[in-house]
Amino acid sequence: MASSILSRHLASSLRPSLGLSASGYRHQQTPAKRVEEVEFDGPCMKTEVPGPRSKILAQQLAIQSVVQVNFFCDYEESKGNYLVDVDGNRMLDVYTQIASIPIGYNHLALTKVMTDPKNMVSTLGMMPPEQFSEKLVNDLMAVAPKGFSRVQTMACGSCSNENAYKAIFIWYRVRMRGTPEPTPEEVRTSVINQVPGCPDLTLLSLMGGFHRRTLGCLATTHTKAIQKLDVPSFDWPIAPFPQLRYPLDQFERENAQEEARCQEEVEDLIVKWNQKGRHVAGVVIEPIQAEGGDNHASFDFYRKLRGITKKHGCAFQVDEVQTGGGSTGKFWAHEHWGLDDPADIVSFSKKMLTGGYYQKDSFQPDKLFRIFNTWLGDHTKNLFLTEVIKVIKTENLLDQAKRTVWSFVDKYPHLLSRARGIGTFCAIDVKDEDTHNNLLLKARNKGKTLSMDCGTQSIRFQSALVFTEHHAHLFLDILNDASLSSSRVYTGIQCGPAQTDPYTVNLQRRG
Amino acid sequence: MASSILSRHLASSLRPSLGLSASGYRHQQTPAKRVEEVEFDGPCMKTEVPGPRSKILAQQLAIQSVVQVNFFCDYEESKGNYLVDVDGNRMLDVYTQIASIPIGYNHLALTKVMTDPKNMVSTLGMMPPEQFSEKLVNDLMAVAPKGFSRVQTMACGSCSNENAYKAIFIWYRVRMRGTPEPTPEEVRTSVINQVPGCPDLTLLSLMGGFHRRTLGCLATTHTKAIQKLDVPSFDWPIAPFPQLRYPLDQFERENAQEEARCQEEVEDLIVKWNQKGRHVAGVVIEPIQAEGGDNHASFDFYRKLRGITKKHGCAFQVDEVQTGGGSTGKFWAHEHWGLDDPADIVSFSKKMLTGGYYQKDSFQPDKLFRIFNTWLGDHTKNLFLTEVIKVIKTENLLDQAKRTVWSFVDKYPHLLSRARGIGTFCAIDVKDEDTHNNLLLKARNKGKTLSMDCGTQSIRFQSALVFTEHHAHLFLDILNDASLSSSRVYTGIQCGPAQTDPYTVNLQRRG
Repeated sequence: MASSILSRHLASSLRPSLGLSASGYRHQQTPAKRVEEVEFDGPCMKTEVPGPRSKILAQQLAIQSVVQVNFFCDYEESKGNYLVDVDGNRMLDVYTQIASIPIGYNHLALTKVMTDPKNMVSTLGMMPPEQFSEKLVNDLMAVAPKGFSRVQTMACGSCSNENAYKAIFIWYRVRMRGTPEPTPEEVRTSVINQVPGCPDLTLLSLMGGFHRRTLGCLATTHTKAIQKLDVPSFDWPIAPFPQLRYPLDQFERENAQEEARCQEEVEDLIVKWNQKGRHVAGVVIEPIQAEGGDNHASFDFYRKLRGITKKHGCAFQVDEVQTGGGSTGKFWAHEHWGLDDPADIVSFSKKMLTGGYYQKDSFQPDKLFRIFNTWLGDHTKNLFLTEVIKVIKTENLLDQAKRTVWSFVDKYPHLLSRARGIGTFCAIDVKDEDTHNNLLLKARNKGKTLSMDCGTQSIRFQSALVFTEHHAHLFLDILNDASLSSSRVYTGIQCGPAQTDPYTVNLQRRG
Repeated sequence: MASSILSRHLASSLRPSLGLSASGYRHQQTPAKRVEEVEFDGPCMKTEVPGPRSKILAQQLAIQSVVQVNFFCDYEESKGNYLVDVDGNRMLDVYTQIASIPIGYNHLALTKVMTDPKNMVSTLGMMPPEQFSEKLVNDLMAVAPKGFSRVQTMACGSCSNENAYKAIFIWYRVRMRGTPEPTPEEVRTSVINQVPGCPDLTLLSLMGGFHRRTLGCLATTHTKAIQKLDVPSFDWPIAPFPQLRYPLDQFERENAQEEARCQEEVEDLIVKWNQKGRHVAGVVIEPIQAEGGDNHASFDFYRKLRGITKKHGCAFQVDEVQTGGGSTGKFWAHEHWGLDDPADIVSFSKKMLTGGYYQKDSFQPDKLFRIFNTWLGDHTKNLFLTEVIKVIKTENLLDQAKRTVWSFVDKYPHLLSRARGIGTFCAIDVKDEDTHNNLLLKARNKGKTLSMDCGTQSIRFQSALVFTEHHAHLFLDILNDASLSSSRVYTGIQCGPAQTDPYTVNLQRRG
């Protein structure tokens, strides 16, 4: 349980300085801010959230579009870890648009790229710009996970996984056939969706996994019914994911048994489905089940899964759409496993800004246009990514991500449990869905944005990489206030007149 | 056959001024350029394409990525209808990155948006920027097809169709059930990919249709085997698309019979699949089958298809990813049908820059997060689209698209046939795949980029909306030269020294 050991270690190392008291957590001394921080000093709430302006805009939008908007943002005013809404509320953002803002809002490095007229829109599939090779070589490949020599860019996480799945099926089928050349029968039947051209291959996924929402991806997603209900799917094998008990050190034997049970089930399913002719071409997993509720398993569990796929000749895809890009304190979450050959395909998006996947040479299809689309990503996003990677290095953000962590559970055993995480990728459970929703709304009105959609009882923490100990203390202050508050009603946070001095208000002054 | 009548009409109206001769087409007098044109005077070729610099870059890229690159581009130097490559070759672009460059390269309106530091990246799903409502209301809805009151943005064409399909399945299933509320059994089974939660519904598509390449989309795509081979698919009904014979006025009776046969087959399939319990939830079509080879049917054929879907309670989705945005001389190709209620869903991308789909109110799912992803498009693309729509209006580009057309077939009956098209959305067939590939390569070396991947015998014409009669004449000159040329070897086009006077060379001076 290295992940949780790390989490607990970091939690303990922070706790002494956090001034925890029996009646709840209250931080007394916020550490000095780092020099490079040029953002706000703290949250500043003027209305409840969503405020009146957000509500008007939401009504306008609802007439013409599908609306699942929390509130509307003023992205010009947002800065660093602080998201400002259209009502002038300034919130500490620890959810960062579902983990998609790598180095905070309006980082100078990105605004420079944005305003360079050279960086125009173009397609990357057939006519890329000159710098495309350089960007791939210098940047995307410079952060490639161990063992990978190739990358394919895509526009978003869904397209990344859909195309990674295609690459797996093609790879598997070519090996079955013994040659990349199809038979005339395969050519004929492929166009009309029939075997053998469209073979009856399968992908194995784990319960609680979330691999996005398009039809191929959705067949490997098993989180909430609302995401899948009424949509036709593929009948593919689904194995259980370990349900670990916390605190981990009190349930070592039970958790080891649980992980062994799940590994056996994975292997059994592969054998059974292969026997019935519906071969398992690959296994797809997340290094941490994110949308499913921040479910962790031990690094050893993943190492064993990798071994099983090798034994049975399946591809192993690690979906790092939500975990990749540094939030666990390593650039890729699966690096924590310490394997030389961790995967065959690693897909990414979100914090990477461009979507795509790394693949081994053998997963490159034999012919052009087997994996293809018009845009194949967005060159502008690659340019942003270049800057993001540079900032991560120069500001040493991976090391910082290792240090920032939370500890809160001990004070509210009646409300909170199962604190878990690696680096900034953390979560905690509350006792039920009502408490979950209440706490999230109250925290938001206190100046903090949190996950609104992860499991039914989990609160997730998905900060930008520029989140520091200073912000962690603020965060714990707010969560403390929110959990102590008895009502969901907005109570307001006093802040000085923003026009004259936006920096006067700091939560430590309320302590 | 209104489409082809229009095409022929426009072709004839151009022909007298084109100076066609028995030995081949050669335009003598290029019309005066329009005032707003501030681009190059013509192509200027310095090397064969791909040139030496492109080849080096392709080699670099091939090491680390999947490569299906034609050549690398210098997007800074490209302007209007002219694409400049990294070897300094300036080509008349009549393919525009698979129909994705609406108003040409480096239009001033777009560079202004690009360099505004306010226009930063953000997600649109849960926390859109303030202008998002306004952009939707003023721009996307201002160009909405008749009968549509809602729009859902997405990042690309694949995600647009995948989510449109989901909206169709949800809509159909809710009507079957009589209530949006699922049974406990449906909730339970949906998470594990089983009926009834994931129902065995189907979508009917037409042979030759191309609705993109992710797994759900791919099940409705029936063009080339290479796009589908080795990838599992859904067993869904596929109807024939009319194979019209040209010239249309010589085959009126045969073509009418052919269309009637296809309509009957669509209706028969719906009845049969419904009877066997695998209900057809929707029918998805393109107003012109683009990637399938620019296959047209009469407007009446589509009107009848729409009628059949209404009769049988299926949704009717018009995929305008490639046809939408003005290329047919109307903003949406299906407007040519003249129906008050043309469709239930219209999907778009490419020229629209943002992906997405328009839908009727009844297709809005009952609950939030049924159709959702992190980005839900890209706000920057919406800002670009605003400018594109403005330029289309102020420069009267739809009317211009109606006027620009080609006529070439008559001169090369041994090589070319089936000239067809609406507005700038045109194609022609050559006698076989070898001739097709030869002509495309030769034309490219003469300074024109064309489709490389449409059917096996078709040459497609997919210009930007800023393509004028002036460019049409240049285009015909080049195609004429390419078809007369006996070898694929690069012969060069004389152009003045680009350093001193990039505008000296104009194809009319070679005439």
